[in-house]
Amino acid sequence: MIHPTALVSPAAQLGERVTIGPFTVIHGDVQIGADTTIGSHCEIGTPTPRAEGRPLVLGAHTTIRSHSIFYAGSTFGDGLVTGHRVTVREGTRAGSHLQIGTLSDLQGTCTIGDYVRFHSNVHIGQLSTIGNYVWIFPYVVLTNDPHPPSNVMRGVTVHDYAAIATMSVVLPGVVIGRGALVGAHSSVGRDVAEDTVVAGAPAKPICPTHELRLKDGSGRPAYPWRRHFHRGYPDEVVQAWLAEFGGAGPEIT
Amino acid sequence: MIHPTALVSPAAQLGERVTIGPFTVIHGDVQIGADTTIGSHCEIGTPTPRAEGRPLVLGAHTTIRSHSIFYAGSTFGDGLVTGHRVTVREGTRAGSHLQIGTLSDLQGTCTIGDYVRFHSNVHIGQLSTIGNYVWIFPYVVLTNDPHPPSNVMRGVTVHDYAAIATMSVVLPGVVIGRGALVGAHSSVGRDVAEDTVVAGAPAKPICPTHELRLKDGSGRPAYPWRRHFHRGYPDEVVQAWLAEFGGAGPEIT
Amino acid sequence: MIHPTALVSPAAQLGERVTIGPFTVIHGDVQIGADTTIGSHCEIGTPTPRAEGRPLVLGAHTTIRSHSIFYAGSTFGDGLVTGHRVTVREGTRAGSHLQIGTLSDLQGTCTIGDYVRFHSNVHIGQLSTIGNYVWIFPYVVLTNDPHPPSNVMRGVTVHDYAAIATMSVVLPGVVIGRGALVGAHSSVGRDVAEDTVVAGAPAKPICPTHELRLKDGSGRPAYPWRRHFHRGYPDEVVQAWLAEFGGAGPEIT
Repeated sequence: MIHPTALVSPAAQLGERVTIGPFTVIHGDVQIGADTTIGSHCEIGTPTPRAEGRPLVLGAHTTIRSHSIFYAGSTFGDGLVTGHRVTVREGTRAGSHLQIGTLSDLQGTCTIGDYVRFHSNVHIGQLSTIGNYVWIFPYVVLTNDPHPPSNVMRGVTVHDYAAIATMSVVLPGVVIGRGALVGAHSSVGRDVAEDTVVAGAPAKPICPTHELRLKDGSGRPAYPWRRHFHRGYPDEVVQAWLAEFGGAGPEIT
Repeated sequence: MIHPTALVSPAAQLGERVTIGPFTVIHGDVQIGADTTIGSHCEIGTPTPRAEGRPLVLGAHTTIRSHSIFYAGSTFGDGLVTGHRVTVREGTRAGSHLQIGTLSDLQGTCTIGDYVRFHSNVHIGQLSTIGNYVWIFPYVVLTNDPHPPSNVMRGVTVHDYAAIATMSVVLPGVVIGRGALVGAHSSVGRDVAEDTVVAGAPAKPICPTHELRLKDGSGRPAYPWRRHFHRGYPDEVVQAWLAEFGGAGPEIT
Repeated sequence: MIHPTALVSPAAQLGERVTIGPFTVIHGDVQIGADTTIGSHCEIGTPTPRAEGRPLVLGAHTTIRSHSIFYAGSTFGDGLVTGHRVTVREGTRAGSHLQIGTLSDLQGTCTIGDYVRFHSNVHIGQLSTIGNYVWIFPYVVLTNDPHPPSNVMRGVTVHDYAAIATMSVVLPGVVIGRGALVGAHSSVGRDVAEDTVVAGAPAKPICPTHELRLKDGSGRPAYPWRRHFHRGYPDEVVQAWLAEFGGAGPEIT
């Protein structure tokens, strides 16, 4: 299952049924869970003094696609799935079932919950704190320096179920509330209240999220999205969401 | 012409005079036209169930630069040229002479005409429909989900000769008219009329494109660009354009 | 120090103590200074007719991280440090101690001073002229075509000590003055005066930079940043900066 051209350090700890693609380099400070697939042309466990001796820990059932780079010194729960050319620096602590899209760049020293989904080309600055079931869409940047360049760093916080649409910047220290929605192409300089839509540059509150309607002819509210969007979540989670909303019916497809 | 370190599946169908660079992987479900060059560190024909058994078809005279990734299940006409680190997912159907710049990310399930040019770091969402002679500049995102995350998908349509300038977002379902120009750093939420300039976030109509003047001292209109910009287009196309405008004179250089 | 899987042209000129990582390709038109480390999966010295026979020249003490691509025909002073997946085209002339972040894309034919720092995913268009001690943050694009597509090209000029914050576009021909600050998510269409903050789309002058205060409780001005931010600069430079400001005290950490 390890391609003959792959370079796997004898010090790396590989679980059962691990597949490593061609021309991939696995360094020594790496623990890879069972049933994991790593694509071609990756560099996994890149050494850095800033990892401070901590290994890269990948859970079971991980999929890392080609040309990705993971440094030593980060920890991921089970079920991580990445696109291609992902870069993940040291000090990233992520829960289970994280998805990281193609070209995304996690700068490290950050905390990420369970079932978080980063779409393509997302930039997660250091000191970011991201809850569970968060969605971040392409070309979003979470910043941390209030007056660049400086040594003052204030991370962004994104609470559970929030969604940040494409090409938005979240400025240093901003807190995005639970279930909030940041519209596309926004620049968010102030905290966003729970279940609130903000948009614009600078972003301003627009309305409660439940006032947005699904553009599927149903007239039903588009948020909270967990009422109707269930793709890829486990049954027990979906059942809990349906119970929360009185069993709002099947997923729209 | 195939580098000894390249891994080429015996099932791959290669035309005459095909060059494959070092450390490149060519999977089996691939048909590559004659006179094609593929650079180093690429992965070509990545398998996916969503390709549904369809191969990757590359036309003749294709150039794919290093570190690029093409999935199985897409079709390109002759003369495709890419930059580096391009990612192209399954279900892309493109005409001839497409150019895709470095870092661009085509999410697949889209239709692209002839002589389309994507500059660097363009993100083409699924269900996009792009005409002929279209230009899309760096960090432009074509979206498709009107209330993310959801299962409702509405692709963007870009008609012939339109140009979308850098760092602009086109929102789901928007139609960009023939020959229109989207200014840099815009967020386009409404359809754009033919030969019209829009700009801003949200983008608003500014003027007809012909009112913009070339900044070359000539005082001539900057649009339609095909009146004066001819680099890389075939003679017969350029002659037709010149005839359309009464033989407006030689290209500005 | 050269990994056995690396492909190094016998024509390449390597200084002493040069390390080349696995699966990296070094072409012939390359001169690499002493004490340099090049990571895995790179392509260095990519040939192009537009290099016009000029080699790629890398100074001493260079670090190029994995998956990076440098064309022939560019020159860098000592101490270049890059992130991963950097792309640098021909005709780039850079001073010493340049830093180029992960995913950044230098289109070539540009001039860059000493101690310039590009963060991740910066796009430097052709004909850009960048001074010394300049900072450019993620997803910033320096453009050059005033009416795309055209053959009229006007590069951006960025003077010493200026900083351009994330997700900003600088439009063709714009001059960013010495010590100026461009706020995040801005679109800069007019020249920016020295030591001035601009922000917005279109960007407008906000205040002199010294009116911004450090968010560290000190109440001291956040700019000029060289008064308090010294990480990675040589002692003699820092001493000169401190003398300029009357010995403003130690760096904030």
